[in-house]
Amino acid sequence: MGDMGRIPVGIVGASGYGGVQLVRLLMDHPRLELAYLGGESSAGKAFAELYPHLGHRVQQIIEPLDLEKIADRCQVVFLSLPNGLAYKMAPTLLEKGCKVLDLSADYRFSDLSTYTAWYGGDRDDQAIAETAVYGLPELYRDRIAEAQLVGCPGCYPTASLLGLSPLLKQGLVVPETAIIDAKSGTSGGGRQAKVGMLLAEADNTFAAYNVAGRHRHTPEIEQVCSDLAGHEVLIQFTPHLVPMVRGILATIYANLRDPGLVREDLLTIYNAFYRNAPWVRVLPSGTYPQTKWAAGTNLCYIGLEVDPRTDRVIVMSAIDNLMKGQAGQAIQCLNIMMGWDETLGLPQLAFYP
Amino acid sequence: MGDMGRIPVGIVGASGYGGVQLVRLLMDHPRLELAYLGGESSAGKAFAELYPHLGHRVQQIIEPLDLEKIADRCQVVFLSLPNGLAYKMAPTLLEKGCKVLDLSADYRFSDLSTYTAWYGGDRDDQAIAETAVYGLPELYRDRIAEAQLVGCPGCYPTASLLGLSPLLKQGLVVPETAIIDAKSGTSGGGRQAKVGMLLAEADNTFAAYNVAGRHRHTPEIEQVCSDLAGHEVLIQFTPHLVPMVRGILATIYANLRDPGLVREDLLTIYNAFYRNAPWVRVLPSGTYPQTKWAAGTNLCYIGLEVDPRTDRVIVMSAIDNLMKGQAGQAIQCLNIMMGWDETLGLPQLAFYP
Amino acid sequence: MGDMGRIPVGIVGASGYGGVQLVRLLMDHPRLELAYLGGESSAGKAFAELYPHLGHRVQQIIEPLDLEKIADRCQVVFLSLPNGLAYKMAPTLLEKGCKVLDLSADYRFSDLSTYTAWYGGDRDDQAIAETAVYGLPELYRDRIAEAQLVGCPGCYPTASLLGLSPLLKQGLVVPETAIIDAKSGTSGGGRQAKVGMLLAEADNTFAAYNVAGRHRHTPEIEQVCSDLAGHEVLIQFTPHLVPMVRGILATIYANLRDPGLVREDLLTIYNAFYRNAPWVRVLPSGTYPQTKWAAGTNLCYIGLEVDPRTDRVIVMSAIDNLMKGQAGQAIQCLNIMMGWDETLGLPQLAFYP
Amino acid sequence: MGDMGRIPVGIVGASGYGGVQLVRLLMDHPRLELAYLGGESSAGKAFAELYPHLGHRVQQIIEPLDLEKIADRCQVVFLSLPNGLAYKMAPTLLEKGCKVLDLSADYRFSDLSTYTAWYGGDRDDQAIAETAVYGLPELYRDRIAEAQLVGCPGCYPTASLLGLSPLLKQGLVVPETAIIDAKSGTSGGGRQAKVGMLLAEADNTFAAYNVAGRHRHTPEIEQVCSDLAGHEVLIQFTPHLVPMVRGILATIYANLRDPGLVREDLLTIYNAFYRNAPWVRVLPSGTYPQTKWAAGTNLCYIGLEVDPRTDRVIVMSAIDNLMKGQAGQAIQCLNIMMGWDETLGLPQLAFYP
Repeated sequence: MGDMGRIPVGIVGASGYGGVQLVRLLMDHPRLELAYLGGESSAGKAFAELYPHLGHRVQQIIEPLDLEKIADRCQVVFLSLPNGLAYKMAPTLLEKGCKVLDLSADYRFSDLSTYTAWYGGDRDDQAIAETAVYGLPELYRDRIAEAQLVGCPGCYPTASLLGLSPLLKQGLVVPETAIIDAKSGTSGGGRQAKVGMLLAEADNTFAAYNVAGRHRHTPEIEQVCSDLAGHEVLIQFTPHLVPMVRGILATIYANLRDPGLVREDLLTIYNAFYRNAPWVRVLPSGTYPQTKWAAGTNLCYIGLEVDPRTDRVIVMSAIDNLMKGQAGQAIQCLNIMMGWDETLGLPQLAFYP
Repeated sequence: MGDMGRIPVGIVGASGYGGVQLVRLLMDHPRLELAYLGGESSAGKAFAELYPHLGHRVQQIIEPLDLEKIADRCQVVFLSLPNGLAYKMAPTLLEKGCKVLDLSADYRFSDLSTYTAWYGGDRDDQAIAETAVYGLPELYRDRIAEAQLVGCPGCYPTASLLGLSPLLKQGLVVPETAIIDAKSGTSGGGRQAKVGMLLAEADNTFAAYNVAGRHRHTPEIEQVCSDLAGHEVLIQFTPHLVPMVRGILATIYANLRDPGLVREDLLTIYNAFYRNAPWVRVLPSGTYPQTKWAAGTNLCYIGLEVDPRTDRVIVMSAIDNLMKGQAGQAIQCLNIMMGWDETLGLPQLAFYP
Repeated sequence: MGDMGRIPVGIVGASGYGGVQLVRLLMDHPRLELAYLGGESSAGKAFAELYPHLGHRVQQIIEPLDLEKIADRCQVVFLSLPNGLAYKMAPTLLEKGCKVLDLSADYRFSDLSTYTAWYGGDRDDQAIAETAVYGLPELYRDRIAEAQLVGCPGCYPTASLLGLSPLLKQGLVVPETAIIDAKSGTSGGGRQAKVGMLLAEADNTFAAYNVAGRHRHTPEIEQVCSDLAGHEVLIQFTPHLVPMVRGILATIYANLRDPGLVREDLLTIYNAFYRNAPWVRVLPSGTYPQTKWAAGTNLCYIGLEVDPRTDRVIVMSAIDNLMKGQAGQAIQCLNIMMGWDETLGLPQLAFYP
Repeated sequence: MGDMGRIPVGIVGASGYGGVQLVRLLMDHPRLELAYLGGESSAGKAFAELYPHLGHRVQQIIEPLDLEKIADRCQVVFLSLPNGLAYKMAPTLLEKGCKVLDLSADYRFSDLSTYTAWYGGDRDDQAIAETAVYGLPELYRDRIAEAQLVGCPGCYPTASLLGLSPLLKQGLVVPETAIIDAKSGTSGGGRQAKVGMLLAEADNTFAAYNVAGRHRHTPEIEQVCSDLAGHEVLIQFTPHLVPMVRGILATIYANLRDPGLVREDLLTIYNAFYRNAPWVRVLPSGTYPQTKWAAGTNLCYIGLEVDPRTDRVIVMSAIDNLMKGQAGQAIQCLNIMMGWDETLGLPQLAFYP
C-alpha cells in the first residue's frame, strides 16, 4: 500500500515517555503517518535531540501547540499530556472532525464528579466527557469502534481489569473480596525529574506507595468493576515500585463463590472470555507470567491458580506499562476506530532475555 | 574485654550465603570468635578464595566435617546447610554439650509430620525436634533463652510473622482473611547456579512463583499463626521475585474485626507489642518501609494503613532476607541464649542509598 | 509475497540465547521460514516450554540432531552451539548444498592454528575453514555475498572492529596504541547456570575479567585489525561485566598520527566509511552512544571525540550483544548471501526507556 | 571511654548523599559526636524525615546555617555542599579554631587558577587555599596530620590515584601513556533530581560522558600525577555511568618503562607502597576487584596484570564512591588530624552478596 493510504496523525506532548512510544510505534505502522509533533517546553527542538536513537527515522521538529494547525493536518490526534490539559484541547479538535485519543485521566470517567474528587479542578464539560469511551478494547471494543473520543486507561487499571474481568463478568467471585497487589517499573512515573525516581534511590529496593486506596487509579478500576459486577464495588488496590524500567504485574486475589471450581475450569473460562482478544494470552496451566515476556509488546499475559485450601483464585496479569498500559493500547484503540485489524502495526514478540 | 571472654563458635556450611553472613557478623561481634569453618565441597580451600573481600580479616581454611572436632573446639555451632542434613548432625553436637542453631528447615516444626509432608524424607527424631525452639525472638524470646537447640525461621516467615503477629495475638483481624503478598530479592535462592536466577533471566522482570500455598514457607507461617490465633489457621501466601539482591517486603492484608479502628490505633498497638523488641521499628504514620532501609542490618521495619472503605488493615514489613531473615537473626538468638543484650554485635544502620 | 517465496531455515542449538534470538527474528522476517529447530538436551520439548512468551507464534517441537533431515528440509542452517561442535557438522551440510552460518568461533579464523591455540582441540579441516568468510558485513560485504559458509563474529569483536576500522583502514592512528576497554551485559555469558552470573553475584557490581589479552575474542580482533593495517597488530583488549542484561559498549583509545585532526574531521571520515552501511549510525558531534539505544535492534551506534591535549581519539561503539553482536548480524549476513536488502526483517528502532 | 571523650562535630549540608554518609558514620564512631546538622533548603526538618531508616538513632533537627553557632558548638566541621560555597564559610570557621574538612572541590587545588578554569567564579583566597591539604592519606598522610583545612578528593581521583600512584612514584611507567577508563554508579551524581539519573533512563544501559578530558576531576588527577612524576603530566580520563548505585572501578593502562617486569614484581611493589595503608588492599595474583567488595566500607581494592605482549600494565582499582570516595575518606583524614588510628570507626567489611 502506498503512502496515499496513510492517515495523518498528530501527537501532542511529544517529549515524555508516552510521546516517544507513540512516535516509535507510528514508525512501524503501515497505515499511519506522523504529521504533527507538538510540545510546550520542547517546542523548536528536533525530536532527535531528545531521543537520538530515533534520529535515523524521525527528523521532525517539535512544534508549538496550535490546535487549528493540528486539526488542519491531522485526522487523528493523540494527547499525551499531564492530567487536566486534554479536556481544554479536545473539544476544539473534535469539533473540527478529528478523532481524539487521550492518554491522560481526563476522559476516563463517565461521571466528572469522580474525576474532580481525585484529580481536582472544576470542569463543566460533562456532556463531552460522556461521549468518551473507556479505551479498554477487550471490554468495550464495540463502543470504541464507534467513538470519536477515547479516554485511554491507566497502566495499573489495564493490567488489573484484564486479570479480574472474567471473574466479575461471570459472577465467579465475591467482588468485595478482590485485592489487587500491583507492582510497576519506574517508567510509570514519567520522564519528570523526581528524587524518589533516581536510580540511586529506586534501585535495590522495593516498597509500596499510595496504600489503602490512595492511588488515583483506584476509582478507575472500581468504575469498570462496578460496571461488570452490576453494582458498586470497592476494590483494594496497592501499588508498589519495582527496581526495573518497564512492566506491571498485578497479583489479584478473590474468594470463589463456588469452591468446587479448579484451575482448569477457570483457565477454560478465561480462554473463552479472551477468545477474540488477540492481545491477551492466557498461559498454560502452571505457567505464571514474567513481566519481561510482555516488554516492548502490546500483550497482556495472564496466569492463574486456585487454592483449594482457601477457596481463593489468584490471578497474575502482566503487561508493559508503556505499551498495553499506555501507547500500544492507544494505537490498538485507533486500529479499532478505523475499522482495521486491531493488531495492525503493533509488536507482539518480546526480546528475551 | 579480652579474647579470654570470647566464646568459640563453629559454622558448618561456610561457603553459601548463610555462611558468609555468619562469618562476616562474627568478625564484628565482641563476644564470639570463629573457631571452626566447615564445608563439604569447599573443604581444603581458604575461605578467602571464595570471598576475597574478607581476606584481610578471615584467614581460615575450610575444614572437612568432623563432628568430634567441632564439638571439641566449639561451644556453639551454626548449621547452615541444605534442608535435611542438620538433623543428622545436631544430636551428636547437642549430646556433647554444644548449643546448636540451625538455619535450615529441619528444626522449625514441632510436628515432624508437617516437616516430612513438605520436605520429604523420613525422620524418627520427634523427641529431639520437640526440644527445638522456633528462633523468632520477638515471639519466643523466653523459650529461646532456655534452648539448647534453635530452629531459625525462614526469611519469608520472619517478615510475614513480624508484620502479622500483633493483629493475630490481639484478635484484631479475622485470621482466615489474611493474605501475604511477599516479594524477595534473588539472594534468597542461595549461591547455587540455577538458570532462573541468572542476572540475564531475573533482571528487568517480576513474577510470582509457588502460587496458591505451594511454597515451603507456608506451613511455617501457618504453624505460628495458629499458635497466635489459638486455632488452626490457613494463610494465603504468595512469593514473588524482585530484580534485586537483598530484601523482602511482605504486604499483608486482613479484615478488621472492629471497623472502627484507625491507623493511629493500630500503630499504638504495634508500638506496644514491640516495645521491648530492639530489632523491630514501627514507622511513623504515613511512612512505608523500603527494603533497602534494612539492608545489611538486623532490623525489621513495619508500616501500616487502615482502609476505612474496605475495613482492611494493610501491613508492610521489610527485612534483609540474609540478616533478620537468616544469619542476623541466628546471632540475635544466640545473644539471647547466652544471656547477652540481644543487639550485641549486630548492625543496625543501613548505608543509603 | 506468499509463503511460496519463503526460504526454509534450520536452527541447530535452539535453546540458548542465540537460538531464541534467531527464532524471534525469523518470526518477523518476510522471506524466511523456520523449518527445523534442533537441540541436544532439549530435544523432544516444545520450544514454548523453554520460552513461553513465544508460545502464541512458535509451536515447534525441538528435534534431535539429524544432519540428513536438516539438509533435506533446509536451504540455510544456523549453527548456534558451544565452540568446537560446528566444524563437525558444517561439512556435511555444505556438501548437501546448504548455506551455513555458524555463530560459534569455529569458522572465525583463517588460520586454524590460531583457533586451536585459543580454543584447543585438534582440527584438520583447514581447507574448509579457509572457505569461510568472517561475517562482518561492514568490512566483508562482497565476500559474504559469495560465501556458502560464514563464521559470524563474536560480540566484542563486532563492537570493537566497527569502532576501530575506519581509523586503521585509513591509517589515521598508530595501531599499537589502540586500547579497547569493553563492557558487556551478562547475557553474553549465555544461558548456562554459572555462579558468577547469578543476579545475586553480578548485580550492583562492576569488574574486569580476562585482563591482559586473556579473552578469546582478542585474536579475532587482532586478525581483522592486522588485515586492515596491513601488518600484524597486537591490540590491548579488556572486557568488563556490567550489571545489565544486554548491550556492549567499547571505549577505544588510539594515538592519532596527525595531531591536527579534529572531531569533525573524523566524524566526516566515519560517515563516509559507513555511507553504505545501514546498520551503523555515526552520532552527531558531542553525542555519545547509550547501549540501550541499540537494544533489540541490529544497529551499532558510534560516537567519538578527539582530545587535543593528548592527541588521542576516543571512539565509543555500542551494540546489542545478542543482535548486531550475534543473531541479528547472522541474519544480516544471510540477507546479503541471498541477494536481499541487508536490512530485511531486522528491527531498527529500540524501545526507550 | 565516656562521652566526655567525644569530639563535637558539625555537618553543613546534611541532606545530600555526602551528608547522610557522614551522619551514618558518626553514629558508629567511638570518638566523635554529632553536635550540629545544618542545611539550607531542609532547615527546620527532622533529619529522620529525609532518611527515616536512621530515625531510631538520629533525632536531630536540621538547623539553618549560622557560622557563629557552629564554631561555638563544634571542634570539627565537615562541609558537604555544592562546589563554590565552602570557600565562603571555611575562613570564618578556621579563624574560630575549627578544623575544617571540605568535601567539595573548593580546596582541592593548590593553584586557584586551575580551580577557576574548571569551576568558574572568581576567588581571591589563594593564601587560604594554599594552607589546605589534599585529603588523600595514602599520599599525604603527614601533611594531613598537621592540617587545619583539608580538601577531600573527588571520588574518581581517589580510585584513579590509588591505582596509579605506585607506578608514577617509582617511575615505572611513561606517564603520558596513562589512560584511566573509569566507571561509576549513579549515586556519584548526588541527590538532585536530574532526568538522566532517573532509574528509567540510567538502568539497563551503559555510556561514557565528559569524554576527552572534559570531566572536572581531570585537573585534580593531573595535579597529583604531576606531583608524583615530578613534571607536568596530562592524563587521559574517561568516566562512564554504570547502572548501579554505589561503586567506582578505574581500569588504568600505562606503558612500562622496563618491559621485563612481570605481574609479581609489580604486586610486590604495590604491597610495599601500601604497607602502612590500612585502607588499601592489594589483591593476590590473578584476582581482580569487584566494586561491591568495597561497598559500605572505606577500602580500596587493587588488582593488576602485566601484558607481556604489549608491555603494558593494567591496574584495576575499586572503591565505594560515597565512602573511600567521599565521606569515609573525610573521616579517615579526621582520624589522622586528631592523632587517632586512621581506621577508627570506619567499616571494613562489606556485606556480600
